[in-house]
Amino acid sequence: MRLRNLGELSLLREVRARFGTRGKGLITGIGDDAAVIAPSKESLLLTSDMMVEDVHFDLSYITPFQLGFKIVSVNVSDIYAMSGRPYYLIMDLAMTGDTDTGFVDAFFRGVDRALKRYGLILIGGDLSSSKKGLVIAATVIGRVRRPVLRSGARPGDRIYVTGNLGDSACGLEILKRIRRHVPFEELRELKKELKDIKERLSLIGLKWDIARRLMSKHIFSEVFPFRVRKATSMMDISDGLFIDLTRLCEESRVGARVYLKKIPLSNALKKACSILNLDPYLIATTGGEDYELLFTAPPEKRIDAFCIGEIIKEGMYLVDENGLERHLLSGGYQHWH
Amino acid sequence: MRLRNLGELSLLREVRARFGTRGKGLITGIGDDAAVIAPSKESLLLTSDMMVEDVHFDLSYITPFQLGFKIVSVNVSDIYAMSGRPYYLIMDLAMTGDTDTGFVDAFFRGVDRALKRYGLILIGGDLSSSKKGLVIAATVIGRVRRPVLRSGARPGDRIYVTGNLGDSACGLEILKRIRRHVPFEELRELKKELKDIKERLSLIGLKWDIARRLMSKHIFSEVFPFRVRKATSMMDISDGLFIDLTRLCEESRVGARVYLKKIPLSNALKKACSILNLDPYLIATTGGEDYELLFTAPPEKRIDAFCIGEIIKEGMYLVDENGLERHLLSGGYQHWH
Repeated sequence: MRLRNLGELSLLREVRARFGTRGKGLITGIGDDAAVIAPSKESLLLTSDMMVEDVHFDLSYITPFQLGFKIVSVNVSDIYAMSGRPYYLIMDLAMTGDTDTGFVDAFFRGVDRALKRYGLILIGGDLSSSKKGLVIAATVIGRVRRPVLRSGARPGDRIYVTGNLGDSACGLEILKRIRRHVPFEELRELKKELKDIKERLSLIGLKWDIARRLMSKHIFSEVFPFRVRKATSMMDISDGLFIDLTRLCEESRVGARVYLKKIPLSNALKKACSILNLDPYLIATTGGEDYELLFTAPPEKRIDAFCIGEIIKEGMYLVDENGLERHLLSGGYQHWH
Repeated sequence: MRLRNLGELSLLREVRARFGTRGKGLITGIGDDAAVIAPSKESLLLTSDMMVEDVHFDLSYITPFQLGFKIVSVNVSDIYAMSGRPYYLIMDLAMTGDTDTGFVDAFFRGVDRALKRYGLILIGGDLSSSKKGLVIAATVIGRVRRPVLRSGARPGDRIYVTGNLGDSACGLEILKRIRRHVPFEELRELKKELKDIKERLSLIGLKWDIARRLMSKHIFSEVFPFRVRKATSMMDISDGLFIDLTRLCEESRVGARVYLKKIPLSNALKKACSILNLDPYLIATTGGEDYELLFTAPPEKRIDAFCIGEIIKEGMYLVDENGLERHLLSGGYQHWH
């Protein structure tokens, strides 16, 4: 069935039946003019992201389930980046009348999975028609006792990242080369699809086991909280390490020195890059969509993250693989450029 | 200049410089991963609306300034509909690279005017490119001590609306008939434009003074708070009186009887409808975008609003101009239908 046959009110009723959860201080959720949330002693965190079809995602490479999961993940990432806990989701959706209701159902199953994964509840939003393509705007509301801002980095602090970089960008590159989506969420039932995917991978010289890790990192953007008692600044890496570190340093009015060899790369990334003839460090530093956390903290031994450099008074420098110090150029994705 | 020449970071910098306001409990606004707001003893209200070009608005009939004002208004309306006060705005914008920076500037001037008008501050959002057309998603955050929900109407309550209905829908009809936008915000400087507008109006038999009131109601959707101590339920009228009253009654599990002749119509609406050969009551009951408040309260003399009927146990009835009681059919706008 198409949305134009189902209609807005029926869809709204279905969404409300599926997500009509209570709890977490929610007084009134979906169905009134506004959601109502009980007061709390903690500060409130609010973050919003928009995802536009054929700009942020291409439905050739991502399933509706995966898209639903991902839009929640990338917003939760911003809450984690403030050292907060996510609580509520508001979602606006614009879809064409041609949209299949099966597509919408799968999308909301992905949203639902992410809500359960991150302990969120859906409290409101807006359903609308669009003339062309799918547009999603999601706002996540969280709470925090002491937020960690971008502006607190001080000279002498060490720079850390919480995980391997570049996997997501490399995963996207693989999806583009095999020219199809990978429905991880139902591969067990889709033996033929899996066979086709493996065949396409073998044509570009890649094994399933390696490609799977990289592609799933891109597709789901699953994120994890990371608490550092002494963190002086923090943000998530969404547009690429170098551009995001540059932003953090601008907010903190400091400089940075990064050691290329200290940037953590997964074995899967190294292997895939050597087969696909890509530069793993270029991907890891400018690729984007890593959704790992980037933070700074005074030198200390017990931080369970990867130290990639240090904060200095001014200037952005990169120590390359040969130990040569060069100016760090902040590449990364910018809209309209 | 076009957005593709300006770039995302430059636009973000401009927005931040323009809206970098402090106050109202805001700890961190635009520029970090999430906005941070200090705790409060009141409940929190959250509402979101999406506006899609050529679905919700047509740039032939509305200027970017007016659009910026309107998107804030319609969200504030939802906060007023809970009996709350609006505090913060989050705005996501998707625009094509072709978008003129003058357009963006005028849009943000409209947003800014609305923020000042309603006492709001912009605390965050997302700027993105779009493949086609403009998409705006706005979330407004408010506070309230005791929210008035849709679900509290009880048999015996009177039904009220806060102002004339139908003006907005009639204003849109006029804009379509004169086939142009009306830049109210700068008409003083645009003598030629005003002359052209008046000429087009005279071709359809309308005077400026009447058309102006109806068109500006549609274009700005300016809203006003209304506090009733004893209101049992409340919502704003966005899709049309009948469909919205039906929703309120469904939420409250009650019925309603509405008296057609009690529905307040402006003199401008009556006059324009008689000239344009339109049914003013049809427009007033199904037209949409009134953004007046619809509420219920026990019978009382001192309520400064228009009583249009009463809540009954069940069934939706309309007493027509001849005193005949008929079933009320809830017409109104539904997406994809």
